Amino acid sequence: MRTLIIISHPDVDESSSQQFLLQSISHLSSDQVTVHLLEKTYPDGVIDFEKEQALLRLHDRILFQFPFYWYSSPPMLKKWQDEVLTDHFAFGYRGNKLEGKELGLVLSIGLAEKDYQAGGQEGFSISELTRPYQAVAKKTGMTYLKPLAVFQFPYKNEAEKMRLLIDYQQYVTLSKPDSLKYREEWLVKALAETSEETLPGENVAFVIDQVIERVEDNRMELDELRMHIDNYHD
Amino acid sequence: MRTLIIISHPDVDESSSQQFLLQSISHLSSDQVTVHLLEKTYPDGVIDFEKEQALLRLHDRILFQFPFYWYSSPPMLKKWQDEVLTDHFAFGYRGNKLEGKELGLVLSIGLAEKDYQAGGQEGFSISELTRPYQAVAKKTGMTYLKPLAVFQFPYKNEAEKMRLLIDYQQYVTLSKPDSLKYREEWLVKALAETSEETLPGENVAFVIDQVIERVEDNRMELDELRMHIDNYHD
Repeated sequence: MRTLIIISHPDVDESSSQQFLLQSISHLSSDQVTVHLLEKTYPDGVIDFEKEQALLRLHDRILFQFPFYWYSSPPMLKKWQDEVLTDHFAFGYRGNKLEGKELGLVLSIGLAEKDYQAGGQEGFSISELTRPYQAVAKKTGMTYLKPLAVFQFPYKNEAEKMRLLIDYQQYVTLSKPDSLKYREEWLVKALAETSEETLPGENVAFVIDQVIERVEDNRMELDELRMHIDNYHD
Repeated sequence: MRTLIIISHPDVDESSSQQFLLQSISHLSSDQVTVHLLEKTYPDGVIDFEKEQALLRLHDRILFQFPFYWYSSPPMLKKWQDEVLTDHFAFGYRGNKLEGKELGLVLSIGLAEKDYQAGGQEGFSISELTRPYQAVAKKTGMTYLKPLAVFQFPYKNEAEKMRLLIDYQQYVTLSKPDSLKYREEWLVKALAETSEETLPGENVAFVIDQVIERVEDNRMELDELRMHIDNYHD
């Protein structure tokens, strides 16, 4: 699976959250992921729509990554949508070039998650406010992924940042990023690849082995439970 | 009441619906309405946010008028939002400069109204897809008006265009554009001002008088019904 991350940000170099996200996937190969910074690629704002359409065809998962200003993307991404997602390409007669691909959102948001609900400060949920993107996925025949919303990045502690790093890597690379089973397998694989050289501290190898064993035990228990439930239904 | 119509369109001169809407309010005075064409005012895309904020302060009703491409505005209006609706002006500490004003949308839409519902071609309603603008109104303390959606303008017949002309004039000028009573009063006044000179055909004055009489009779009947209902509740 190849993922295209389309980033729109008026000043990506100065954004701590964008830089953190970029760094956390910098080890991935170009076979896995393409990072595409719109404002840097087109500083004059003139988009090469044929090049963009060719890029889209090469990838299976398309992510729109941007700060959620006024409940939508920066203007550059909207310009991209209007000029690249054309009739006969993305919709309409023979406009099936995006069909079957996935569309996801990576949103950086200044307020807290609790503010986005009825009665909260913003009054509406992220699901409601991102409906236009869900409609884009529907119109183009793409599968809409559950958005990855990064709330209040500057206030995150180290543990929360590590959690975000894993969530983001999985959102970019995992074939089913919303499945517990797939996320477990991914974690076991990532842990197995971790070695004493890449991590500081004593007894690291032992700790990692213990964590892997625990995750695998949990999975066996969950699988057994599922088996019981399936038998019950038969 | 003064209304500011902020129009965003990549090519407003070539848009038949935008030209129709502009013509239908061309008789209104500058005390009543200001038409503000964003792309023409800022051809280089550089927005004078202080001038824009001063313009907003001068008006009571703000309308965003644009083609509903990909379920949102053209990029220029989003740029305007991001740069003009700043902290301490539109929200945040002392950011109450738009409080109590009204925010409305005038959307030109290529498909039919029936396509915008669950199970329809687009899958989501206009209310759902315009949630981000409703959230802007909430955040800035503005009253959100029911959007005026113009579906499939090129397919409209003359009667439908006349209906749109009245709806749009009322949306721009009427203090309560959604109230039947106010719309009736507006219509009676507009008809009374109509004369044989401005309309072709024979017996025009007589026909207009008849229409006014009919509308006023209807209103009296509705008022009587309301009185009965009120008595019933007492």
